[in-house]
Amino acid sequence: MVGMKKLINDPADVVSEALRGMAAAHPDRLRVDLENRIVYRKDAPRPGKVGLISGGGSGHEPMHGGFVGVGMLDAACAGEVFTSPVPDQMMAATKAVDSGAGVLHIVKNYTGDVMNFEMAAELAAADAGTEVLSVVTNDDVAVQDSLYTAGRRGVGVTVLLEKIVGAAAEEGRPLQEVADLAKRVNDNGRSMGMALTSCTVPAAGKPTFDLAENEMEVGIGIHGEPGRQRLPLAPAREIAELLVDPVVSDLPYQQGDSVIAFVNGMGGTPLIELYVMYNEVAQLLDRAGITVARSLVGNYITSLEMAGCSVTLLKADDELVRLWDAPVNTPGLRWGA
Amino acid sequence: MVGMKKLINDPADVVSEALRGMAAAHPDRLRVDLENRIVYRKDAPRPGKVGLISGGGSGHEPMHGGFVGVGMLDAACAGEVFTSPVPDQMMAATKAVDSGAGVLHIVKNYTGDVMNFEMAAELAAADAGTEVLSVVTNDDVAVQDSLYTAGRRGVGVTVLLEKIVGAAAEEGRPLQEVADLAKRVNDNGRSMGMALTSCTVPAAGKPTFDLAENEMEVGIGIHGEPGRQRLPLAPAREIAELLVDPVVSDLPYQQGDSVIAFVNGMGGTPLIELYVMYNEVAQLLDRAGITVARSLVGNYITSLEMAGCSVTLLKADDELVRLWDAPVNTPGLRWGA
Repeated sequence: MVGMKKLINDPADVVSEALRGMAAAHPDRLRVDLENRIVYRKDAPRPGKVGLISGGGSGHEPMHGGFVGVGMLDAACAGEVFTSPVPDQMMAATKAVDSGAGVLHIVKNYTGDVMNFEMAAELAAADAGTEVLSVVTNDDVAVQDSLYTAGRRGVGVTVLLEKIVGAAAEEGRPLQEVADLAKRVNDNGRSMGMALTSCTVPAAGKPTFDLAENEMEVGIGIHGEPGRQRLPLAPAREIAELLVDPVVSDLPYQQGDSVIAFVNGMGGTPLIELYVMYNEVAQLLDRAGITVARSLVGNYITSLEMAGCSVTLLKADDELVRLWDAPVNTPGLRWGA
Repeated sequence: MVGMKKLINDPADVVSEALRGMAAAHPDRLRVDLENRIVYRKDAPRPGKVGLISGGGSGHEPMHGGFVGVGMLDAACAGEVFTSPVPDQMMAATKAVDSGAGVLHIVKNYTGDVMNFEMAAELAAADAGTEVLSVVTNDDVAVQDSLYTAGRRGVGVTVLLEKIVGAAAEEGRPLQEVADLAKRVNDNGRSMGMALTSCTVPAAGKPTFDLAENEMEVGIGIHGEPGRQRLPLAPAREIAELLVDPVVSDLPYQQGDSVIAFVNGMGGTPLIELYVMYNEVAQLLDRAGITVARSLVGNYITSLEMAGCSVTLLKADDELVRLWDAPVNTPGLRWGA
């Protein structure tokens, strides 16, 4: 099939086979409900601990299933590629991780995800009396409304939020406090991304959009949704400015601020280029008088094999940095454990 | 430039700018000698500890610079993309990490790398009296001789070896023992890779080789060297057999064996596809009666943005598994620390 070179079998089986692969690769940490397409932390529910759930369309790996484990999520619901999971999955996960301390839903702002998580929360409350709070991430400064979203899209800050809020939940904090922290992280984070190439959804079999050999799309979403502008290819230095400037001026991040700086690959961009980009981003922040307290460079919230990157900044105080540094043990993010 | 969509500035600056990016992103763990293009563990040399050095052409990130840190390498020398570093770099690194306990060179079997590391060992011995031993990895079962190699190429087992031998060196074992262990790991490891697409070396500006829309290359090397055969695109299930069968039958791995199983991405293949591949590999091993003691799935020894994967097996006894599990703290591989 022209335009689709992938390591897959039947396109219809990609998500379930990848989940089988995760189950086979991480039996020490994860338990996978293949029927409902839910990845669980092996020891969930943890007595007294607030349950953390996220989920969304597949194709953004390691997000979210790869962020399940000690110090991060208790469960992740996988939809088809670029398609929201259904409320039944989310309800099953919600009930399964509730130890009685309640559950926080971490939802990227896409209309389908938001609606389905809301419905799942209502169903779980009605069915099992589970107390559910939600946080909706909407950190993408690129566009106000988008193909699948009213308001701003939820992107890179979701990774940082799942890590930081995961550490807080691990400490045994109560649900409202965990939800407040999640909101604080989202409120202090901003992102913007760009693409050099499209990706191809397996079931579609052809690229999501066309981009000429000499073009790039700036402000793109993680499903290939149109961004702010198409521009001629540019050096990494200019691309970094096109991403960092709108991010910095939006919150705004100011001289003297301390941030967690995250340069994310879209899936098809090699690490050597992400470090070239990080070098540019670090210089821009340095010139703006913004201190990098912690950094993350790699492919964490991806768009299948799309080439490109995004930049996320999170204004960080001592508490957020301490929670960032806390032990985490997931397939996608691991330290101190 | 047609055929080259990359997040870079001047192609001539890719390696030095990526090293600057690494230095900026990991100041807590790494010290980077930008002039000599050497990534050092921040606290090297460690008194009484054997120094571990590797290196090679750039473009395989996170290998090797991303494997420098506690429990793995003391230093890595970066060459230009797909080009061996020079003996002067290797000599400088060798002298710098020698605490008096000697230095082990971990060398992938490519003619330039082998020759230059040998020369560096002689220079360091003559200049500073440094005792150097070497291990050359040659785990690729695909072809006997190749474009840049006499004998088999060194590929995926190098990642596993750097981790395991790094743990042994961290325990304070003497040089000869560390070198013997390295040889044992290499002798018990086998790999084979494949590509769906070529990659483009920045300085060349065009794809290294041509591969039709309906073709794949099986047995390819990590620089795009020709493999065993070009075949029509096939499902993941068949690709897994084309890689696992020659690997298993070569050592051979036998019923009852225990292995560390490593499914590696070539750089441009998204994680969701690597898990689909791991699912197939795990089933093949299960059917052969081979037990997976530990697994690794992700992009660790890459070929720029090439799409494809490789499979590495390492026959593992209790000691190797214990050393694999030991704490490691590098940008590319981290747990327990």
